[in-house]
Amino acid sequence: MQKKVFQLLVNNTSGVLSRITGLFSRRGYNIESITAGVTADPRFTRITIVASGDDEILEQIEKQLAKLEDVRDIRELLPEQSVYRELIMIKVRAAAEQRQSIIAVADIFRAKIIDVAPESLMIELTGNQQKIDAFIGLLDGYEILEQARTGIAGLGRGTEHIAFID
Amino acid sequence: MQKKVFQLLVNNTSGVLSRITGLFSRRGYNIESITAGVTADPRFTRITIVASGDDEILEQIEKQLAKLEDVRDIRELLPEQSVYRELIMIKVRAAAEQRQSIIAVADIFRAKIIDVAPESLMIELTGNQQKIDAFIGLLDGYEILEQARTGIAGLGRGTEHIAFID
Repeated sequence: MQKKVFQLLVNNTSGVLSRITGLFSRRGYNIESITAGVTADPRFTRITIVASGDDEILEQIEKQLAKLEDVRDIRELLPEQSVYRELIMIKVRAAAEQRQSIIAVADIFRAKIIDVAPESLMIELTGNQQKIDAFIGLLDGYEILEQARTGIAGLGRGTEHIAFID
Repeated sequence: MQKKVFQLLVNNTSGVLSRITGLFSRRGYNIESITAGVTADPRFTRITIVASGDDEILEQIEKQLAKLEDVRDIRELLPEQSVYRELIMIKVRAAAEQRQSIIAVADIFRAKIIDVAPESLMIELTGNQQKIDAFIGLLDGYEILEQARTGIAGLGRGTEHIAFID
């Protein structure tokens, strides 16, 4: 059981996401997280996929992904050579008297309060998964109403980069 | 031409992403961004999808998404009732003499420098799309080597929330 992070550069077409996710699901493989956003060049989308499973099967999936027509490049982002980040938004139930202690927890993690309602606070936090998990752990005594995680985005360290092969 | 943000709560199964993205691509609809991450309850995944297109067709897609077996809830996140956030990582070519001016731009936007290499800087920024686009605009004079955007995550304002219907 291995966790792998793949970075893809794909053509910005309507079917590409569905073909990529289909390759995983046909083997019964679950994508733990996927993030997709346009690049500086709107013709291309960069996708970061986190998947875990058998090493050999993940390698097969990687090879098949590389063969898809709209996939221009794929590489594995190795932990020691990469930076991963995730964003999480959490809405916590907070009456007026609880607000201060929740804000104190948020401050420790340099999280931002991005919405305040009479009964709730919304918090934004970015970091690696351990940091985000630790933060959620500290909110244990409070009622989490909703949360949305973006999933991991990642880039390789240093100057090496996926070229636009055009 | 309308841009819509959908928030889904789905069962954390291997085929769900592929079925959701397939519904869009079968109509030739492009997903502008998708983020998917587990919720506090690991049985469920929350997905935020941004799509643009004809209003009527997007409504049809929304109805069909709601009918999918693994989709437990779907709603549109209306701009005035929601908070959207996106995370972007940007790697900029930066020789030693350019570093200070790039860091100054990052400071204005409260962006964080998350990796420094002899020839490059990596920057993390969160915000709404306008803020991120403005930041990229200010980096215009520098060479962007790579960027990864998570796509939008969003939550409704206030205490209302998608319940876990179990």
